[in-house]
Amino acid sequence: MAGWARAVRGLLLDVSGVLYDSGADGGVPIAGSAEAVRRIKASGLKLRLCTNETQATRENFVKKLQGMGFDVSVSEVTAPAPAACHILKERGLRPHLLVHDDLVPEFAEIDKTNPNCVVLGDAAENFTYANLNEAFRVLIGMEKPVLISLGRGRYYKETDGLKLDVGAYMKALEYACDVQAEVVGKPSKRFFESALAEMGVLAEQAIMIGDDIVNDVGGAQQCGMRALQVRTGKYRPSDENHPDVKPDAYVNNLAEAVDIILQQM
Amino acid sequence: MAGWARAVRGLLLDVSGVLYDSGADGGVPIAGSAEAVRRIKASGLKLRLCTNETQATRENFVKKLQGMGFDVSVSEVTAPAPAACHILKERGLRPHLLVHDDLVPEFAEIDKTNPNCVVLGDAAENFTYANLNEAFRVLIGMEKPVLISLGRGRYYKETDGLKLDVGAYMKALEYACDVQAEVVGKPSKRFFESALAEMGVLAEQAIMIGDDIVNDVGGAQQCGMRALQVRTGKYRPSDENHPDVKPDAYVNNLAEAVDIILQQM
Repeated sequence: MAGWARAVRGLLLDVSGVLYDSGADGGVPIAGSAEAVRRIKASGLKLRLCTNETQATRENFVKKLQGMGFDVSVSEVTAPAPAACHILKERGLRPHLLVHDDLVPEFAEIDKTNPNCVVLGDAAENFTYANLNEAFRVLIGMEKPVLISLGRGRYYKETDGLKLDVGAYMKALEYACDVQAEVVGKPSKRFFESALAEMGVLAEQAIMIGDDIVNDVGGAQQCGMRALQVRTGKYRPSDENHPDVKPDAYVNNLAEAVDIILQQM
Repeated sequence: MAGWARAVRGLLLDVSGVLYDSGADGGVPIAGSAEAVRRIKASGLKLRLCTNETQATRENFVKKLQGMGFDVSVSEVTAPAPAACHILKERGLRPHLLVHDDLVPEFAEIDKTNPNCVVLGDAAENFTYANLNEAFRVLIGMEKPVLISLGRGRYYKETDGLKLDVGAYMKALEYACDVQAEVVGKPSKRFFESALAEMGVLAEQAIMIGDDIVNDVGGAQQCGMRALQVRTGKYRPSDENHPDVKPDAYVNNLAEAVDIILQQM
């Protein structure tokens, strides 16, 4: 019973759909999740928030979570924008940004003059016809277009309904320019590996808990981690028949996952 | 010499980029094209405009062409929207439309209540974040999503610059919903075949003339037609090194194509 929960040293938690349901109103915590985070910390397990959130800086994102009662800090967050900045600096890339207004400060130190790549995030209301055409023209004007996408999610749920995620817009630009985007964020192996390194935990000692069957569960398993799917957030019953990805276990929510894991310790 | 021009009974002409260059200002005729259309008609060759135009009804589209001096009529146009209406009726499909405002009248007779499919056209300014999310929600809410796309072009050129075409948005929705769109319009075989049937001409008796190496030239050749690429419209010199498609001939423009074809008659 619950063999999947043995010999754990660290937990990676997806945030939206696991800790809270996001929405135009800021979001609503998922029942039991704040208490579950506190119990993880009290247990001595390492904890890392591993998110594809790109609608806010880490500072504002953590402030919002704290406001909902979560005991978390900026130093516990692995997110795509800082990872992308690392890559931009490493390769001397100057981005044209198509991202959410609130994410722009994460790129404050990056040279954005005379762009030689496009960085695409979940721009939400900034996904206008004009902005998409502009990003497209920057890309198609390059001899070898470089498109960096902060995640490749298909869609997510907000309190007012499902929204197309960055992956859909990534596919639009990929097709129009005949390029393949470089994905920074889940399910990229490099991204999960930096989260593990930041925790100081090996893949086989870690469990990823998420609501996204492909980006959370599939991605973490590809890195050698165990992975659970919660039945909250964007979970749909049809996920349980996914042709390629099978979680190590399903749990109703984060609280239940933490119950089972702590019982095994 | 010009063996490709022998034994022709009918010509299929792409419109934008062959007859005129489109733009926010309405467009500009390509030199010699209006006269070329008149010469085709005087020669006794059958003529059909085979277009992926979805920003206007056929009536308004033809009015615009007539205003530029082209001797053409609505009955000579094969366009995606009427072809889609045929399919919708045939299969009892009720569309949610994400199309240009000016195309909506083509669907006047179609039941649009309680949609069981999405029809996507080049919606241009209607490609808003809200409208894309709405089309997505309709699709993802279906047990088996049906997405009908009026063409699959990557991008096109207007007088104020390059614009993403319907194909890019089709890819976004395909990815988000994990479906494959049914394409109505070039390069669909069924679409070319209806154009030929409407002309009463066999594929081997027909020549397609277009500026799009994939959708015009490749599509027509797949149906057994000959196909020419004009060096006007969206033509780019790199098209002449296309890995998969080789036109039966290149011509500088429609006027030159018609010169050569009429000399062979």
